[in-house]
Amino acid sequence: MTEFHGVFPYLISPIDAGGNIRKTTLARLCEDLLTAGVHGVAPLGSTGEFAYLNASQRAKIVEVVVDSVGGRVPVLAGVAAASTSSAIEQALRYQSIGADGIIAVLETYFPLNEQQTESFFRSVADKIDIPMVIYTNPAYQRSILTIDTILRLADHPRISYLKDASHNTGNLFSIVNRGEGRMKVFAASTHIPCLVMQIGGSGWMAGPACLAPRMSVQLYEHCRDQRWDEALSLQRKLWPLNELFVKYNMAACIKAGLQMRGYDVGDPLHPQQSLTPDQSKELSNLLGYLD
Amino acid sequence: MTEFHGVFPYLISPIDAGGNIRKTTLARLCEDLLTAGVHGVAPLGSTGEFAYLNASQRAKIVEVVVDSVGGRVPVLAGVAAASTSSAIEQALRYQSIGADGIIAVLETYFPLNEQQTESFFRSVADKIDIPMVIYTNPAYQRSILTIDTILRLADHPRISYLKDASHNTGNLFSIVNRGEGRMKVFAASTHIPCLVMQIGGSGWMAGPACLAPRMSVQLYEHCRDQRWDEALSLQRKLWPLNELFVKYNMAACIKAGLQMRGYDVGDPLHPQQSLTPDQSKELSNLLGYLD
Amino acid sequence: MTEFHGVFPYLISPIDAGGNIRKTTLARLCEDLLTAGVHGVAPLGSTGEFAYLNASQRAKIVEVVVDSVGGRVPVLAGVAAASTSSAIEQALRYQSIGADGIIAVLETYFPLNEQQTESFFRSVADKIDIPMVIYTNPAYQRSILTIDTILRLADHPRISYLKDASHNTGNLFSIVNRGEGRMKVFAASTHIPCLVMQIGGSGWMAGPACLAPRMSVQLYEHCRDQRWDEALSLQRKLWPLNELFVKYNMAACIKAGLQMRGYDVGDPLHPQQSLTPDQSKELSNLLGYLD
Amino acid sequence: MTEFHGVFPYLISPIDAGGNIRKTTLARLCEDLLTAGVHGVAPLGSTGEFAYLNASQRAKIVEVVVDSVGGRVPVLAGVAAASTSSAIEQALRYQSIGADGIIAVLETYFPLNEQQTESFFRSVADKIDIPMVIYTNPAYQRSILTIDTILRLADHPRISYLKDASHNTGNLFSIVNRGEGRMKVFAASTHIPCLVMQIGGSGWMAGPACLAPRMSVQLYEHCRDQRWDEALSLQRKLWPLNELFVKYNMAACIKAGLQMRGYDVGDPLHPQQSLTPDQSKELSNLLGYLD
Repeated sequence: MTEFHGVFPYLISPIDAGGNIRKTTLARLCEDLLTAGVHGVAPLGSTGEFAYLNASQRAKIVEVVVDSVGGRVPVLAGVAAASTSSAIEQALRYQSIGADGIIAVLETYFPLNEQQTESFFRSVADKIDIPMVIYTNPAYQRSILTIDTILRLADHPRISYLKDASHNTGNLFSIVNRGEGRMKVFAASTHIPCLVMQIGGSGWMAGPACLAPRMSVQLYEHCRDQRWDEALSLQRKLWPLNELFVKYNMAACIKAGLQMRGYDVGDPLHPQQSLTPDQSKELSNLLGYLD
Repeated sequence: MTEFHGVFPYLISPIDAGGNIRKTTLARLCEDLLTAGVHGVAPLGSTGEFAYLNASQRAKIVEVVVDSVGGRVPVLAGVAAASTSSAIEQALRYQSIGADGIIAVLETYFPLNEQQTESFFRSVADKIDIPMVIYTNPAYQRSILTIDTILRLADHPRISYLKDASHNTGNLFSIVNRGEGRMKVFAASTHIPCLVMQIGGSGWMAGPACLAPRMSVQLYEHCRDQRWDEALSLQRKLWPLNELFVKYNMAACIKAGLQMRGYDVGDPLHPQQSLTPDQSKELSNLLGYLD
Repeated sequence: MTEFHGVFPYLISPIDAGGNIRKTTLARLCEDLLTAGVHGVAPLGSTGEFAYLNASQRAKIVEVVVDSVGGRVPVLAGVAAASTSSAIEQALRYQSIGADGIIAVLETYFPLNEQQTESFFRSVADKIDIPMVIYTNPAYQRSILTIDTILRLADHPRISYLKDASHNTGNLFSIVNRGEGRMKVFAASTHIPCLVMQIGGSGWMAGPACLAPRMSVQLYEHCRDQRWDEALSLQRKLWPLNELFVKYNMAACIKAGLQMRGYDVGDPLHPQQSLTPDQSKELSNLLGYLD
Repeated sequence: MTEFHGVFPYLISPIDAGGNIRKTTLARLCEDLLTAGVHGVAPLGSTGEFAYLNASQRAKIVEVVVDSVGGRVPVLAGVAAASTSSAIEQALRYQSIGADGIIAVLETYFPLNEQQTESFFRSVADKIDIPMVIYTNPAYQRSILTIDTILRLADHPRISYLKDASHNTGNLFSIVNRGEGRMKVFAASTHIPCLVMQIGGSGWMAGPACLAPRMSVQLYEHCRDQRWDEALSLQRKLWPLNELFVKYNMAACIKAGLQMRGYDVGDPLHPQQSLTPDQSKELSNLLGYLD
């Protein structure tokens, strides 16, 4: 498989009231995203409400997605744990289901030092045969990965991607420059994707791409072809979607938007709540404009 | 059963390299703590590394503790989850195993507002038949429980205890005063236990009590009998233990200390690490002094 | 002069629309506080809006207070600066005006390390002949004073007091215990004053004492005489005042309260704003209850 | 005067041991920067250690800079205060000295709400006849300016520039897009300047430009001419300078670098400290590479 690149929508996790995965809905969403041209899909990210799902729900979602995609594009499954042993268990399970890579999130309860954090990612990577994307999100984590550590981790044969959900685009620039490309970077929706592409990024992994997959792919192509004027012009149109998802609960936004688009994905998982009527209106106006 | 009160050691979780619970060690620890006079035990707290255990390990620990204690004192089992459904599942399971109450921790990924936070605790309490202790720890949580909300929750027939791991003793004073005793408060090791007792607290739930159970019980008795001079004098002796556990990783400290005391509890779970030799020395000196 | 101890009200800074100090009002407030029995007064603290005053307004306030007090109790003047040279300049000026001690606040713009922070306090103390109180307030400062550093500073002949505005009463306990009394501690209104007294504190410096000086002095006397039951009972009555001042803008609260009590102190300095009518009502109810 | 745009080096404040401004050094620095082609200069910014200077030192620095520049480029003087009255006093003084604009920093002691923050900037702008640049730096401020407030402020005839020292380039994109150019944005060294230019920025105000003025001007010209490839290539060369200044104390870095370049600017003001020998070496290596 060639290098991961391009637009990876973070998939929502459609769950019914009994806690079962709505397989048909999820499969149809995958199919439609692939038709729109996305370069891969990422189940079990933040947008996928991983923190609210149990082990069997998580595995079932990876199964449905791997089956639906059928090898046409890479499937990168989210692995999130506080303990190394749980992360390894999840990673091996998704690998055996057929995921093409994992996106590793270190959850922390007690604060960890740099060395412990590095050891977590390295220990998981040692056990798997598929590539690992390291996920960093300073707002939600109590562990710190310095640029030096990230570049040391890039020497591991299974680690060569970083997905960063901070606002700090300068850090990505430093990582790309100093690493001379050994660590490939993906933006989250907190960055301006077309700028991350310009400084050497590989693409973006983000929830909003579920709602505007065609425009996202077109934006990526402009970036790839270095047509920065067209890219920036399209980026301006898409940016309000990112603004909205940073402002409200991410999963609530994407689930509401997909529901408006005819996917019966249900509500965000309790104690999270659906968008208020005013927030829904705001999203609805935006989607109308993007159609 | 009468009201919960007194000293509840937070139990460590002894796990072997294969991920199995060391039942004999855990049972012996419970037995010794009961002999020392503790008023209850609390498996699956922070000290119990709940965030690093899977569902079956957690249940097994509650089983071993409930069996060992055999009804002599209350067992309060930690329930920690981001989703309401998982919290309910854990709570019902521990209730059916025989726990006398639960200590509920709301893990958060996406930030929650006050109403969502309240709804989480209320939804869990609605489903159980045993009392719930609400656990607050502002440093490790992204959800906020105001005093007003805490006092509203105290009206629920299953909720009448709060265990607080902030440094803010003034907040506990406000809760006791304004709630006129409807919400009983327990200190964590971040507070000075004998002062929390003095403003109307019911006791403390803390890891350090595993290592100094007799002195902890004696301190409680001084407080109960309002012998504040003796209490404070004993508190001064015990305080360095709290200082140490706030300074280093809590679970690493208690596990190291118990190991020194002859309990084969093993290391903290990866990616956490054991105390360094210098930190061990510091703990060892302290324990010698407390013996 | 004997050791500083007891209740030191933080004085507000009454300023008219033209930026002039309302001398008569300030003098009358001092007189009334002394009549009520306070053990000292502290101009230019947070309550005194030091950050909103220029150098000549600050000096004028110290002059008025020193004149009014006339040596009957100690006057501790606030010195607040980011640069060591400005702190020294203020300290020498207030010393020459006749202040009996200074309360030193380190303002920070660029973050400082421990050594730089220690050097600031030491450099100022080296230049003065009157005692220095170190003021710590982690919420408003970007410099950290560890307990070790605080105790090292206590070896300086001019430094033997700490006034702490954190919520962390445990830290004060550690400082008193480890320092064996070399560093005397004063509580701010974030702590529960009578508990700080009990663990060995010397008193409290706080804005609320402006509004309830008699009860504050009575509380201090109960503490001094180790009548903890009476102390705690009075503390319960006074605590809502502390709650209110932590909740709203401190200076706005005290100025509004003094205005209700007949002192024409004016509004907090712009861009701060006066209490809203609802907040005023809340304060007014409380004051009625305390009268 | 036309619109402010381009590269504005933040000037350091060279002070001798007696607290006097080293006028010759400051004048020579201005002259050399102008020769290098900078589009303006900014005394009394963070790099200029404004928080460590008294009122007369600040005014003297503005005088020296205005005299040296002699109207060839705009001089934007930093105004920093917690009180509105002090900010107005500073602004009027620098305006009368001949500054072409001010950069307004709201210092906060007590936290301020949105309305109070807006009122501060508006009250200062009402009093002056020269343009105001609003400066935002979330890491160092306890007041929050939302995008909505910033755009409301842009309707004031004296306010049409924002200088932002956060890492959040996405916010600048939102401000430029939503404001349709009413609020012009300047980057600080925390952003990647050439990317801020690309999304519609007007330039950057930053300390590092003191040390690499020619390359900074060349970078600006590439951006202005939309030669993004050349711009990004030059940006890669310059970025390590930004990395260094974010890592260490900003003023210490620029002062050390200028000293290496032959300007006798002295040390950062106490309690700040000079770079350590290792840090100096790191800076020296970098400067050699940039020469």
